[in-house]
Order: sequence, then C-alpha cells, then structure tokens
Amino acid sequence: LMGNERRSMVMTMRDLETTAYHEAGHALVGELILGTDAEAGKRGDIDPIHKVTIIPRGGALGLTSWLPDDRKTMSKSYALNRVAMAMGGRIAEELIHGEYNTGAANDIDQATEIARRMVCEWGMSEKLGPLAFGRKEGEVFLGRDFSQTSQNYSEQTAREIDDEVRRIVTEQYARAKKLIEANLDKLHAIAKALLEYETLDHKDIDVLMVGDSLTRTKPSIRIKTREQIEEERTRKEKENDGRGAILGPPVPEPS
Amino acid sequence: LMGNERRSMVMTMRDLETTAYHEAGHALVGELILGTDAEAGKRGDIDPIHKVTIIPRGGALGLTSWLPDDRKTMSKSYALNRVAMAMGGRIAEELIHGEYNTGAANDIDQATEIARRMVCEWGMSEKLGPLAFGRKEGEVFLGRDFSQTSQNYSEQTAREIDDEVRRIVTEQYARAKKLIEANLDKLHAIAKALLEYETLDHKDIDVLMVGDSLTRTKPSIRIKTREQIEEERTRKEKENDGRGAILGPPVPEPS
Amino acid sequence: LMGNERRSMVMTMRDLETTAYHEAGHALVGELILGTDAEAGKRGDIDPIHKVTIIPRGGALGLTSWLPDDRKTMSKSYALNRVAMAMGGRIAEELIHGEYNTGAANDIDQATEIARRMVCEWGMSEKLGPLAFGRKEGEVFLGRDFSQTSQNYSEQTAREIDDEVRRIVTEQYARAKKLIEANLDKLHAIAKALLEYETLDHKDIDVLMVGDSLTRTKPSIRIKTREQIEEERTRKEKENDGRGAILGPPVPEPS
Amino acid sequence: LMGNERRSMVMTMRDLETTAYHEAGHALVGELILGTDAEAGKRGDIDPIHKVTIIPRGGALGLTSWLPDDRKTMSKSYALNRVAMAMGGRIAEELIHGEYNTGAANDIDQATEIARRMVCEWGMSEKLGPLAFGRKEGEVFLGRDFSQTSQNYSEQTAREIDDEVRRIVTEQYARAKKLIEANLDKLHAIAKALLEYETLDHKDIDVLMVGDSLTRTKPSIRIKTREQIEEERTRKEKENDGRGAILGPPVPEPS
Amino acid sequence: LMGNERRSMVMTMRDLETTAYHEAGHALVGELILGTDAEAGKRGDIDPIHKVTIIPRGGALGLTSWLPDDRKTMSKSYALNRVAMAMGGRIAEELIHGEYNTGAANDIDQATEIARRMVCEWGMSEKLGPLAFGRKEGEVFLGRDFSQTSQNYSEQTAREIDDEVRRIVTEQYARAKKLIEANLDKLHAIAKALLEYETLDHKDIDVLMVGDSLTRTKPSIRIKTREQIEEERTRKEKENDGRGAILGPPVPEPS
Amino acid sequence: LMGNERRSMVMTMRDLETTAYHEAGHALVGELILGTDAEAGKRGDIDPIHKVTIIPRGGALGLTSWLPDDRKTMSKSYALNRVAMAMGGRIAEELIHGEYNTGAANDIDQATEIARRMVCEWGMSEKLGPLAFGRKEGEVFLGRDFSQTSQNYSEQTAREIDDEVRRIVTEQYARAKKLIEANLDKLHAIAKALLEYETLDHKDIDVLMVGDSLTRTKPSIRIKTREQIEEERTRKEKENDGRGAILGPPVPEPS
Repeated sequence: LMGNERRSMVMTMRDLETTAYHEAGHALVGELILGTDAEAGKRGDIDPIHKVTIIPRGGALGLTSWLPDDRKTMSKSYALNRVAMAMGGRIAEELIHGEYNTGAANDIDQATEIARRMVCEWGMSEKLGPLAFGRKEGEVFLGRDFSQTSQNYSEQTAREIDDEVRRIVTEQYARAKKLIEANLDKLHAIAKALLEYETLDHKDIDVLMVGDSLTRTKPSIRIKTREQIEEERTRKEKENDGRGAILGPPVPEPS
Repeated sequence: LMGNERRSMVMTMRDLETTAYHEAGHALVGELILGTDAEAGKRGDIDPIHKVTIIPRGGALGLTSWLPDDRKTMSKSYALNRVAMAMGGRIAEELIHGEYNTGAANDIDQATEIARRMVCEWGMSEKLGPLAFGRKEGEVFLGRDFSQTSQNYSEQTAREIDDEVRRIVTEQYARAKKLIEANLDKLHAIAKALLEYETLDHKDIDVLMVGDSLTRTKPSIRIKTREQIEEERTRKEKENDGRGAILGPPVPEPS
Repeated sequence: LMGNERRSMVMTMRDLETTAYHEAGHALVGELILGTDAEAGKRGDIDPIHKVTIIPRGGALGLTSWLPDDRKTMSKSYALNRVAMAMGGRIAEELIHGEYNTGAANDIDQATEIARRMVCEWGMSEKLGPLAFGRKEGEVFLGRDFSQTSQNYSEQTAREIDDEVRRIVTEQYARAKKLIEANLDKLHAIAKALLEYETLDHKDIDVLMVGDSLTRTKPSIRIKTREQIEEERTRKEKENDGRGAILGPPVPEPS
Repeated sequence: LMGNERRSMVMTMRDLETTAYHEAGHALVGELILGTDAEAGKRGDIDPIHKVTIIPRGGALGLTSWLPDDRKTMSKSYALNRVAMAMGGRIAEELIHGEYNTGAANDIDQATEIARRMVCEWGMSEKLGPLAFGRKEGEVFLGRDFSQTSQNYSEQTAREIDDEVRRIVTEQYARAKKLIEANLDKLHAIAKALLEYETLDHKDIDVLMVGDSLTRTKPSIRIKTREQIEEERTRKEKENDGRGAILGPPVPEPS
Repeated sequence: LMGNERRSMVMTMRDLETTAYHEAGHALVGELILGTDAEAGKRGDIDPIHKVTIIPRGGALGLTSWLPDDRKTMSKSYALNRVAMAMGGRIAEELIHGEYNTGAANDIDQATEIARRMVCEWGMSEKLGPLAFGRKEGEVFLGRDFSQTSQNYSEQTAREIDDEVRRIVTEQYARAKKLIEANLDKLHAIAKALLEYETLDHKDIDVLMVGDSLTRTKPSIRIKTREQIEEERTRKEKENDGRGAILGPPVPEPS
Repeated sequence: LMGNERRSMVMTMRDLETTAYHEAGHALVGELILGTDAEAGKRGDIDPIHKVTIIPRGGALGLTSWLPDDRKTMSKSYALNRVAMAMGGRIAEELIHGEYNTGAANDIDQATEIARRMVCEWGMSEKLGPLAFGRKEGEVFLGRDFSQTSQNYSEQTAREIDDEVRRIVTEQYARAKKLIEANLDKLHAIAKALLEYETLDHKDIDVLMVGDSLTRTKPSIRIKTREQIEEERTRKEKENDGRGAILGPPVPEPS
C-alpha cells in the first residue's frame, strides 16, 4: 500500500508559476481572437477580458474572467472561440513546462461540453446536421435531481458525434497553440506581470499587449509560497536562535 | 479557470436583429407552404400564422404562433411542413449572419422530435414500415414521473431509425432553404417590419407577402437594446454634466 | 420559437371523414377475414365485428369492437388476423387521403406488440423457434409497478427478433391492403354509412357487405364539425343582425 | 381503434380439445422417455406422471403433474428430458390443429429457462464449459426484491450462450416431435380419455399406453363449454317458450 | 402446464452416491496438489483438507473443508489450485455417472469468480496485464446495499476478459481431470469410505491416500435414503400386517 | 461444496516476507525515480518517501507513505511516476516469489485509476487529445451518494481509452521492473531491514540506498508469525509438560 502523510494549504512556487502561465494563456488567446480583423474595424466574436488573477478563490488556483456583452444567443464562431480560449491555459503550461498538468481538467471539461452541445443541441456540425441528439429524462424527486441525458441514438451516430466533438476541440487546440506560439513574448509579459501584480485588469492587459510595461504601483503581495515560508522560518530561527518558540503553523520538514 | 463576471437582462442589437430574422424565417416558410397550390384552389397542409413577435416572453426571444384548425390527427405532409417551418428560423439567421446561432436549439429539438415520432410512432417511414419502435416503461412514483422510453430494438434497427430521422430533417431543411432563398425580399420585408412594429398579425403578414408596405401606426417601441441604453446614458451624462446623480440601473462598462 | 395559440374541442370535417374510413378499414378487413373459406363452411379465425362507431369516446376518435368468443388461447392465424385487422384502419386512410395520419399510432403499437409476443413469448416464429426471449424483472414497490422486460439475449438475436417482427407486420399490412383494394366499394359503403349513422352494429355491416343499403332510421346527428358550427353561427348572425348577443362558445376566427 | 366488448369465463370446445391434446402431449412424451431402455431394465431419467387433468385451476387450463423422486440434484439427461416433455404440449397442438397456440407460452418459458440454466449455471454445455455466466446483483429493499441478473460478459459470449440455449431447446423439440409422431394413436387415446374423464391418474395412463381402453366409471362431467351452455339454453327456451324468465348467467349473443 | 406434486426431504441413494463421489473429487484433487513436489520437500500451494462429509448441512449435500494457514494474501498458484480443486467434484461425478449434475453449480460459480478476480482485480493474466477492470459503484441506502460493479471498459476488453477467465477455468478443469483419472482407485476408496463413515478427517484421508483401509469404528449411520425408508416400511407393514397403524411420516407412493 | 473451517488473525512468515518485499518495491522505485537526473541537480517529479512499514494497520499489511510537497496540480511525469511506483510492490513480490499475489490488488486499482484519469479527465493522452470522456451524473439522495460516471461516448472511443490506459500502465510496469532489476541488492537490503526494524524512515532509506547498513537500535519486535507462535507454544508445552493449562489463544492444529 502507498499513501501520503498529510497535505498543507500552502502553495508551491511551481504551482504559482504554472497558474500565472495558465491564466496568461487564456487571456492571450482571448485578446488575440478579439483583435482579429482589427484593421477591418471589426472585433473577433468573443467577450473581452475583464480581469486575470492568480489569487486562489474557492478551489480554483486562478481565474480569467470577462464581461458578457448581454448577448442572449451564441454564434458558432463565439462557441469555437470559447473552446480555443479554454485551450489557451493548458497550451501555455505545456510550452513552459514541456508537459501537461492536471490543472487544465476544468477547461478540458468545459471545452468538451461546448463542443458536444454544438454538435448535439445547436446543430452546428455540418456532418451531423440540424438535429438534436440525446434526450433529457427522469425527474426531480424529493427535491433531488435524478434527470439524465439518455443516448437515444445508434452506436454509429455515437461514433460520428465523438468524431465531430474531437475534431472541434483539436482544431481549436491547434489554432490556439499557433496564436500563442506566435506571441510568446506577450505570454511571458502577462505571466510575469501576474506574478508581480497578482491581478491584472483589462487596461493592464491592453498595455502588455502593445509591448509596454506596467508602471502602476505593485500590490502588497498576499500569496506566500512554501519556499518563501520555509525561507522566512529559517531566517527567523536564525534570529531567534535558541531564544524562543517558533511562530506560525507547523511546516513540513524538508524532504 | 475562465468565467464571466455578471450578466445583465438587457438585449443587444445583434440579438434583436437575429430574432427578427429568425421569426421572419418561420413565418415566411409557413406562409409559402400554405400558399402552395393556391392556384389549384388548395392550401398547403399547415396551420396559418396567427402572430409573429420579437417581444421576449418567458425565456423565449420571439415567437411565431398559429391558430390550430381543431385537427385531431396530423397528416404526414402536415408533419413534414412543421419540420420545414421549424427549420425556417435557423436558415434565415444563417443567410443573414453567415453562421449558426444557439437560438435555434429549441426548433432543432422540436423538428427532431417530430421526425422521430414520424418514424417510431406514426409509421410514416416507408423504410421502417408501420411498426412502433421503443417502449414506454416505468411509472409515476410518489407523484413523480420516472417513466422512460426504453430501446427495445437491435443496434441495426437503431441505425435505420437514425438514418430515417436524419433524412427527414435534412430534406425539410433543404426544402425550407430553397423556399427562403427564392423569397429573400419577403424575408427582409418581414424582418424589417418586425424591427419597426415588434409584433405582426396575420393581416400584416398578408400585406408583406404581396409586396406591399405596412401603413398602420407604429407602436411605441418597448424594447431597448444595450446600445440604445448606453447612447441615452451618454446623452444624459452630457446634459447633467457634473450636476447630478446618474439615474437608472448600473450599466456594464464598455469593454 | 413557434407555438400554437389555443386548441378547441371541436372536430374538423377532415378528421370525421378520416375516422369514418379508418374504422371502416378495420371493420372491412375483419369481415373479409371472417368470410374466408365461407364456401367451405368455415369461418376465418377472428372475432366477428360487434359495433363500429365514429362517436369520440375517451380520447379515441372512433372504435371498432368485437364480441370475443370466450377463447382462452389464441391461434397463430388469429394473431396474424388481428395484426392485419389493426392495419386496416391506416390502409383505408392512405387509400382515401393518399397519405398517412398520426391517428393510426395506437393500431401500429398494438400490431407491433402482438407480432413481438408471437416471436418472443408464443414461439410462433419458425426462424426463432419455440424459445422465450426477454425476462420480466423488477417489482411492484410502494404500490407502483417498476417491473420491466430486460433484454437477456445477444445483439444478433435482437436483430433476428426485429427482422421477424417486421416481417410479420409488413406481411399482414400487404395482405390487408390487398383485401381492401379488392373491396373498395364496400369500404366506401361502410365509411359513408358511418358518416350518416355514426354507429353501425353487426347487422348493418352484414347488409353493407352484401352490397345492400341501410334502410333503418338515421339517428339524430350528434357530432357537429367546426365547419357546421361556423356555418350555423354565420346564419344566426345574419338573423340576429345587429339585434342581440351571439350565443354559444367562442369560435376560432377563420384562418 | 379496435377493442373487444366483454369477456366471459366460459370455455370454448376448441380450447377444451386443445387443452386435452396439449396435456396428452406432455404426458405421452414423459411416459415414452420413462420407458426408454425398458428392455434393458432401466428407466429414462424423468419423474413418472402422477396425474393429468383438463380441469382449469388458477389460470391454467390443464395440468400434467409428477411425483418427484426426492432427488436433490438434476442430471443433464433429466434436464434435457424436462425440456422435451415441456415441448410435448405444443407439438401435440400443432399436430392436431396444424398451427401453434398461445397456450404453450408457459412451457416455452420453462424450457428456455432450464436450457439457459444448463448453459449459464450448471456448466452443461460442452461449448461454454464449466463456467458461470451472469451475476445476481441488487437487493431486497423495504421488503421488495430489486435483485436482477446482470450480464457480466461480452457480446460474443452472449451470442454463444444464445446459440447453445437455442440448440438445446430445438434439439429436444425435434426429439419430442419424433416421439409423438411415432405414437399418434396413444396421443389420441390419452386426449380422448381426458375429454371423457377430465382427470387421469398414472394407472389410467399405463392402461392407455399399452393400447387398452379405460373401463372405470366416468366422472359426472363438470366442465361445460360455451357450445353446451348455448344448446342447453336454447332447449330451455323452447320448453319455457313464452312462459317464464331465463335462468342462468347472461350468455354472449351468437356472433 | 406441467408441475411436480410435492417434494419430500428424504434423500435418494443416487444423490448420496453422487455426493460421496463429488466430495471425494474435491478432496482427492486437493490432496494430490498438496503432494506435488513432495519428493522435493515442498508442498503444493493449497490449504490441506480438514474434513470431508456427506452429511447434509444448511442446503449443501456435502462439504469438503480445510484449515486455512492464516495467509493474508493468495498467490497465483494458490488461486489456480483452488479452481482445480473446485472442479474436482464435478469431474468425479462425471466419471462415475457419465454425465453432469446440477450439484456442481456452486463450485462452478466459485471457480468462475476466482478466475474473474484473477483477471480483473489481481492482475494475474499476462494478456490483460496489471490493470483493474470494472468499478464498484452505488451505495448502501436505507441500510440496503445497492452497490454494483459496472463495466467501465469496451466490448473488446470484455471479450478479452471472457477469454482469459474461460482459459483459466478450462485449463484447471483439464488438470484436475488428469489428476483424478490417474488416481481413480483413490477416488473410489475415498467415496466408499464416505458412504461407510459419512465423515472423514484429514488422518482418514492420509490413510486412504497411501492405499490403506480405514480400520476405525464406523459411526452409527445417520442418513437414511428413500430406498431404505421404503424397505423398512414394507418390512414393518408385513410385521404389522392388518394389526395396527403405520408409524412414521407419509412416504411418497412408488412411481 | 468446499469451504474453510476458521480463520485466525495471526500472520504467516510468507505474508510477512511478501509484505516486506512489496513495500521495499514501492520505496525503491520511488527513491530511484526521485534520484533521476540527480547529477543534473534535478530531482525526479515524485514525492519523497517519508516512512515504510510492515506493521499491519486497518486491513493493510504494510504501508509506504510520502510527504506531499503541497503541490496543487500534478504534472504528467508525476502521474506516470506514481503509476510506476504503485507497480513496484507487485514487481518485487514477483521477483522474489516467482509469481503474483492478491496483495497488489489495491495498487493495481490505484494505478489504473490514475491512468484512466490521465486519459479521460486530464487530457494527457496524445491519441485521445485534450477532451473529457464520461460524465458525472446523478445525485446525493437522502444523504447517500447515487452519482455515477456514465459513458457518454461510442464503443470505438471506449476501445481507444482502454488501449491508452493499458499502454500507460504496462509501460510504467516495464519501467519499474527495469529499475528494480538493476537494483536488486537495494531491494534485498530494504526488505531485510524492514523484517528487522519493521518501520524505516526516510533517513534509513537514504542509508540503505547508498549501500550502507543500518546501525540504529532495533525495535522490540511486535509482529509474531504463526510459525513463531507455534514454536513458542511447543516450547512452553515442553516446559509445562503435564503440569498446567496452555496459555494463549487456541492455535490451529498443524496441517
């Protein structure tokens, strides 16, 4: 049998950097898609970035958010752009670390869900056509939702749906990768700014996208990594050497 | 992670136009099918349009409604016509915007459901024949419906059903597209009238179908788009410049 | 979105005629099968018609009923004859209107169910042999039936069952169609008598089957079609012109 | 729509004869298998017939019963003999009426169940080998059995199981048919004795199997067929002609 | 319909003999496997027999039991040996009676379960590798277990699992058969000793395995077969001839 | 029927040795992976071993634990390393005993689960791409979890997932095997130290990994094997010969 001993709530430097590049990836792809055809006086069909942050909140290590433009319906390009933007985080991580992380699981889930609805609910696949696939069944019972989408189609149709969903996600992955690779300098700029400022708003992003540096006051850093905590503790121990108790939560011994 | 910040209840100009063309698409296909064989003194087998509106109601952005003629049974042509008419909305959007929108999801669902019942319940597919496919099972339990249609046939039959359902929907899609493309002037006329008058009744549609213009009094416009609200606010701010509070609900900042 | 405005409880002329021919189809096939081998002093193995009616009752637009001869077991020919008779309604509609209607859904369901039980429970398919396919599982729980027939056989067997069930129904369809086509005069006679008398008993059917006309007193007609209601209303409006209130339920405006 | 008017509890002559031949078929196959290798001083591995009756009891139209010899395990030959004996009823009906009846559904179910257990539980198929297929799952809940046998094997195995089950049942069907066809005189003898005496015990069967006639007192006949009830009624009506009320339960009018 | 009349709790001679050989088969295979490589000073990896009995207990007709050696993990050879030993009972029956009995159902189930766990849980199939197949799902609800193992793999994997499970069981079957066939004298010796002594302990088995006879006192026989009961009754009836009531429970009449 | 008599809570020598090698296998693979690229100043991406023990705890025979480094996301190499480390236990057993044991079931389950999530949730398979497969459905009901992951993909996709999951596990198995085979001396050293000291901490492992011997005080041995208990009992019986009661729990007689 194998198992881990205990798990602290402290973040590692690696996770912090990974998160910064991940969110920078989302933001960069979003901004680049928005700027498509800018010279033609047109914006790409995607909501503009509102804020990017690496301050953990409710289980998420970071967040890239946008201000919706009150649209009630989504166009096919908007849906595809959302898939590409979702892929941005993972691609950025991959470019920096040379490998994937589990942190993209939520984006992967979201992108797959959008692609699946494009094919199965919104009739946006030329191959499958303007049909609905799958049926909502069951009911809420004693206040609990027991509903589930049942597969009311043949195995052959299931395969065609799978192929279309996979095609959509991998095409947008390739597109997002190309966009990021052609703008690596901006990826680094945004990620580094995130590590310095922790949160960027849409004006900061605009500054970084034209190649300028942020000049506004840096916030008092709130995130402490495991490495910083340990360093601090070592420093304090030296100061207090032999003279008092160690303050703060217990720290995992160096392994 | 990615996510949107907040969502207002205000409509965009794009959604309004999309809705106008979408409902115009339904109405046009319905009217054209009704007029089939008009010279032969016969009407197409479909319920005539009663009212078309782009005033949002209960989650729907617009509505094309008809007055049923009290029929208790549906003929195969009526069922096919309903599928074609359902496709009209999406085709109109596609012709105008050059791409699909998620707004047609409900029509797609309805058209697929009609086509599926034609094949599985009403014996209207020559290929599958006069048989019933699928069985209603389960029960209402503690006042909740747990029933579900179970697949009591082989995978091969499932494939044949899928093929027939898809054939029916795509054939009616092609038919509706042909009808709209041959009557683009009328599509524009109805959509534009909808944007001006918001709601059209069957007499208005008749006027537009013969190429005339509506001359009746326009209603006091009730729908305000995000763009109009912003414009108005800007104008008021200029008037009130420095002199008072801004009235009205908070408006998303320009992105 | 599309939707109908409201639905009255009044019947259309087309539904009434459709129902008359539909029930006439059931009755004619039943009587013709019963008369098979009449010269050999033998009757076809089917229950004789007891009554045919186009007076709606409990959701059904019409009804063809028979008096069971107390049999406790059904022969294979009886089962096949029941399938053929079930198909009679739909075939009659098709011959008259040139297309199918949704009204045959119940017959299609019944015929498929009989054919399926012939193959899966009663061992009446030479190809599948004297075996039972499918197993009754589950239970009544808190007074509700949760039982369901589970598929305890392979996909290959499922395909063979489907093929046999389809063969049985389509063969009887063809047989019933041939019988009706060879006796179109009788179909018209029964259908017309139904429209005149609304309900026919087995003696009336006997009279019509030998080519005679009914001479008994017609009933005071009870079914009023939408067309008759409108006509009457128009007449009354003329009589009352400007002089009083309109009696009766609200009528849908002509569309 | 089609439907039957009402259903009486009276039996028809045809059902009575069918039942007599059906039970005679079971009994004959049982007795013939028991007598196999009689000259070798050995009995076939099957329980000897105890009683055969055509008096309806609890939903069944007739019953062939045996006295179990207290065995706790069943041999493969015993299982096969039971399948053959189960088929006997249906084969006898087929030989007499030239077609199948629904009355054999229960025997078909029983034979299929024995064959399936031979293959899936008792390891009696050389092809599938000494393995168990399928798993009992679920539970009794609030006093109700929700258990079900789940298919824990591949589609290929499912097909092999189907093939073996079908082979077993059809082989025993062929064997039972051969046995009955070679002893048609005894089938008629037993069936006729059943119609006369209603219930036969194992001594009666022995007498009939060696070609003798029953000489014991006939019982006072208890079963009345629809035909006999009608005849009696007609006779009584003639006697009572115009003079009194008709006694007895209402009788379906001749159809 | 067919059915048996009543079922007594008395055992037949055939069942008793079958049980003796069945348990002897288990014991013999177990002892032979244990003795493998005995000259090399090593014992086969299996628990030694503790006791063999043909006295029915709780639904089982007999029992071969062992004393576990406190092992907490099972080796692959131990698992295979257990499968072979489970097959021993059925093989012994087959050699004696020339055919299978239903009494081996429990062993078949146990052997299949071990083989399935070897493949799906313990990674003991070279072909499938060190992976787990199937997932425990569901929950205990209102004190009842609703959990079930769901198939979370493809049909192709299901086929490979089936093939491996079948290979394991049939290989061990062949191995056990070979062992028994090469030691038929010992099988007879153990079975006969069981019929005489009803229960054998591991010392008795040792004596029989080296070819010696048991010399210890026989127990007062407790099991009476149907045949013995009948004989005794006949004898008593002769003694009591005409003089008194028959004692003891009712006995099924000879069939 | 077959069954074991009773089961004591005492451990056998074989289980103890197996456990020592099993845990040594986990630890060795973990340490070797951690040391990868040590000369490049880099550590392999895996949590360092914290403690290894063969003292049974809560159903587990032994435990290899690590101190997590507070990481919030897992890299692909970390996931693969965890799979390899999980395989280490089983490989060590196999090398020592020449065959598999059931004790690795938990590791196999864990490794398969990680590999499956790599493919289905974390998009770490190049072949399947950055998509999510399977959907969490159902709900917690009356405080019980009824959720389950439903397969929302085609059989073809299921096969591809199976292939990828199997490829990942078998590749890591091969890798771990190679690592252990190249460091057999260390495997023996750790296993032997475990048998002597029962629990090793990360400093002990470090000593053993560089080829030194442990010199710290041995603990008072707490685990007693069946063999030791029996020996002790025999010794005490000799001492007490004829003079008193035997102390301690009943011991299974030698088999």
